[in-house]
Amino acid sequence: MQRAAALVRRGCCPRTPRPWGRCLSSAAAEAPAVLQVRPERSRRERILTLESMNPRVKAVEYAVRGPIVLKAGEIELELQKGIKKPFTEVIRANIGDAQAMGQQPITFLRQVMALCTYPNLLDSPSFPEDAKKRARRILQACGGNSLGSYSASQGVNCIREDVAAYITRRDGVPADPDNIYLTTGASDGITTILKILVSGGGKSRTGVMIPIPQYPLYSAVLSELGAVQVNYYLDEDNCWALNVQELRRAVREAKEHCDPKVLCIINPGNPTGQVQSRKCIEDVIRFAWEEKLFLLADEVYQDNVYSADCRFHSFKKVLSEMGPEFSSNVELASFHSTSKGYMGECGYRGGYMEVINLHPEIKGQLVKLLSVRLCPPVSGQAAMDIMVNPPVPGEESFEQFLREKESVLSNLAEKAKLTEDLFNQVPGIRCNPLQGAMYAFPRIVLPSRAVEAAQAHNMAPDMFYCMKLLEETGVCVVPGSGFGQREGTYHFRMTILPPVEKLKTVLQRVKDFHIQFLGEFA
Amino acid sequence: MQRAAALVRRGCCPRTPRPWGRCLSSAAAEAPAVLQVRPERSRRERILTLESMNPRVKAVEYAVRGPIVLKAGEIELELQKGIKKPFTEVIRANIGDAQAMGQQPITFLRQVMALCTYPNLLDSPSFPEDAKKRARRILQACGGNSLGSYSASQGVNCIREDVAAYITRRDGVPADPDNIYLTTGASDGITTILKILVSGGGKSRTGVMIPIPQYPLYSAVLSELGAVQVNYYLDEDNCWALNVQELRRAVREAKEHCDPKVLCIINPGNPTGQVQSRKCIEDVIRFAWEEKLFLLADEVYQDNVYSADCRFHSFKKVLSEMGPEFSSNVELASFHSTSKGYMGECGYRGGYMEVINLHPEIKGQLVKLLSVRLCPPVSGQAAMDIMVNPPVPGEESFEQFLREKESVLSNLAEKAKLTEDLFNQVPGIRCNPLQGAMYAFPRIVLPSRAVEAAQAHNMAPDMFYCMKLLEETGVCVVPGSGFGQREGTYHFRMTILPPVEKLKTVLQRVKDFHIQFLGEFA
Repeated sequence: MQRAAALVRRGCCPRTPRPWGRCLSSAAAEAPAVLQVRPERSRRERILTLESMNPRVKAVEYAVRGPIVLKAGEIELELQKGIKKPFTEVIRANIGDAQAMGQQPITFLRQVMALCTYPNLLDSPSFPEDAKKRARRILQACGGNSLGSYSASQGVNCIREDVAAYITRRDGVPADPDNIYLTTGASDGITTILKILVSGGGKSRTGVMIPIPQYPLYSAVLSELGAVQVNYYLDEDNCWALNVQELRRAVREAKEHCDPKVLCIINPGNPTGQVQSRKCIEDVIRFAWEEKLFLLADEVYQDNVYSADCRFHSFKKVLSEMGPEFSSNVELASFHSTSKGYMGECGYRGGYMEVINLHPEIKGQLVKLLSVRLCPPVSGQAAMDIMVNPPVPGEESFEQFLREKESVLSNLAEKAKLTEDLFNQVPGIRCNPLQGAMYAFPRIVLPSRAVEAAQAHNMAPDMFYCMKLLEETGVCVVPGSGFGQREGTYHFRMTILPPVEKLKTVLQRVKDFHIQFLGEFA
Repeated sequence: MQRAAALVRRGCCPRTPRPWGRCLSSAAAEAPAVLQVRPERSRRERILTLESMNPRVKAVEYAVRGPIVLKAGEIELELQKGIKKPFTEVIRANIGDAQAMGQQPITFLRQVMALCTYPNLLDSPSFPEDAKKRARRILQACGGNSLGSYSASQGVNCIREDVAAYITRRDGVPADPDNIYLTTGASDGITTILKILVSGGGKSRTGVMIPIPQYPLYSAVLSELGAVQVNYYLDEDNCWALNVQELRRAVREAKEHCDPKVLCIINPGNPTGQVQSRKCIEDVIRFAWEEKLFLLADEVYQDNVYSADCRFHSFKKVLSEMGPEFSSNVELASFHSTSKGYMGECGYRGGYMEVINLHPEIKGQLVKLLSVRLCPPVSGQAAMDIMVNPPVPGEESFEQFLREKESVLSNLAEKAKLTEDLFNQVPGIRCNPLQGAMYAFPRIVLPSRAVEAAQAHNMAPDMFYCMKLLEETGVCVVPGSGFGQREGTYHFRMTILPPVEKLKTVLQRVKDFHIQFLGEFA
């Protein structure tokens, strides 16, 4: 029991260096008090065990909510029970969850949502007319004029029209509502299109190229689908830029053991925060065309660009402007979400996917597959509608909306700069500029004695570092090994979402911890 | 083009008798005007085609939103354009979508949801105190006190506690919040647990037993996962009862080519509407125990029981009362949803799964898998909270709540009886009592000339019948072949959700159509 508790404390188990799965489970099996395991009373073997379960699911890892976050939960419980720690609260900088960090919802969005939810409020004088107008329009497009009806599997028609109009305004290139699929967050869209794309066995298994570092949804879904993960490395020395030479290397090597068919791009980058140049995007599109790759563009941070010399360019726009050879041929799916940007409405699980040059037969297959799950949450679809169709100049709510939006974005920009500056003052930490998104992914130099100590604990060195950081400072960040990184380099991902004063505290704590850590393992 | 349009009109294509997939797609390829196919301009092959796509996804079928529903959409468009038909509206009796059919939301539920959505309303005197109390409690359990934050992957803690308390009250047997997983509708829970359960290849592929007729989510998910679908037939002559002898036959035969590991039960039945007796449930549990099967109990219609001599018994309760040999050993997952019952909140995609006797290691795997998709929609979780924690006697909203609830349920009971009675007056239609759920699944006698005519059109005979019914009367129902039925028998599924007067019209139209159909193909 003591040993098991110690294992839980370290966040990993001695049997295996894998950061999840068996680790969690063996801790559970050995530490009944912590994880509420019932006493052994089975007279027969269970049917569903680690040995009998789907091995693809077993292989899935998802670091953003992994063992470090379970540990954070345990520490919070201990604090609640009055157990003394060197800190009074856990600061969860592990996940891009803006409102959990105190960001206020955009008033207009919540007003429209409340009106849609409880239409009696349409008679209330305390709601602005422009919000009522949006709500009426959404409700009229819903079965029985209710958010409680299923929508079409592809999403409510008028919301898809609004998304198409938004993309048209953004890109100056027409978008077709028929190409828009509303989804349960962007994760759902990414999963769905990958499900359709992955096929084959042996050497003809589908290879899917993903950036390293990546957002671990990708590796998790590929594992579940039995696809081959083909890594291409972003260039840390060059501000995490995507280098087409590296794409060529990766695809060449992949062809020896699989059929590379898909190229995933995350722009602005997660966890790396770079914003791709237009030139880079053109190069990537040319590469995809030459190599016959289906492009997935994860653009959920498109509103989160902070560097003055960076601009977001959508793959759709660049593709459309490269001439018919590309614009009529390259297959592209791009993704957006209500969870990020300045709205930060993660809980509603709103998202959309736009597809370009998809074969009409495949569109039929896509609708069929989506229909099995009936429809995305209609409240999330409504949130998406407000995101793509916000108040415009002249409307009653416009000024308040603009004020709120700019406050969130300027605040994030300030915190991006603050984080970069402070990290770069710490010896042994090096942080690329946070051009966009909402994370820092600093590189940390770990002394060889620290690496040895981690190995002795059967933990990845950066997991060892992050666990100690959590236990000693209450700051919860995710080790770089959960996102992937070049062999022998170590990082962590930290969100910049805490309010400025709290973020300063976090950065100071990380700084102090890091210096002490270097001393301890010098 | 004319030929293609005719194919679309028939809802199927000449090349294949499969009701979806290739059917839809070849219609699309041949009928550009209808489905907006772009002119051929590709200088190279597309990457993602019917040939290259995931074959498991291609094999998926989902009749409830299949070709007949696409056809219904086309007819609606034609009516809007003023094209004359023998009817003025399409009545969508294909799907259990209560609010789309005019059922009003439960006021209390929408009040709490509006308060959670826009907490400024907590100061408004026009909302009752008990609704405010519920909303405050939910918000306090959300990150940043907002529905816009991610919840824990397993769901908001206090909502899982409320679900457990609800199950405890329902069954008189304690439920543990740790065993509750909130989901994106019941479909999500069913998909997730099946994902974990399915493994193996060749003769050790996982076999999953499902009732025939079934709800086609099951066949779709099994196809996607590459599991073996093991059919057991419900006894139509005995009011669609589940017969354990038939389970034995099915498992015995299945063992010759796969590893049967899971038994799915739908109670009350969808599409068949039977309510299982306690004795039957005990027999099923004994059978699962003997045959080492993991039980899945789809109980989303538990509040929809109409026959005076039927009662809903949960698998959990029966299992708990069968003594420790069963209650401590049989692995069970049961499912519930906000979409059915008397709330009918389909659009919010709220659901839960309760697991019993799940191995602690598997619980860890389940949370890991769920965490990849971050969390179920928090608004759907809130809707679930109100469903399991409605107003109680003494609370301000209790009387209105009770009135609304009883109105919905007594109305459904009336319509169940009406439907059964009217169908049984039609020569060539035979309908079992609608003991529960919200569908009739009448058997229809089709003359051999009609079967031949269907074959000439390469359509399943009941698809041919339902297409004609839709085209001639505007009534949209789903052919029995989409749910499965004994060879040579034909059925359709129709919801009883239209308002009473409209339902009477529907039934009369079906009756007239059927008599005319019999005459036409006599």
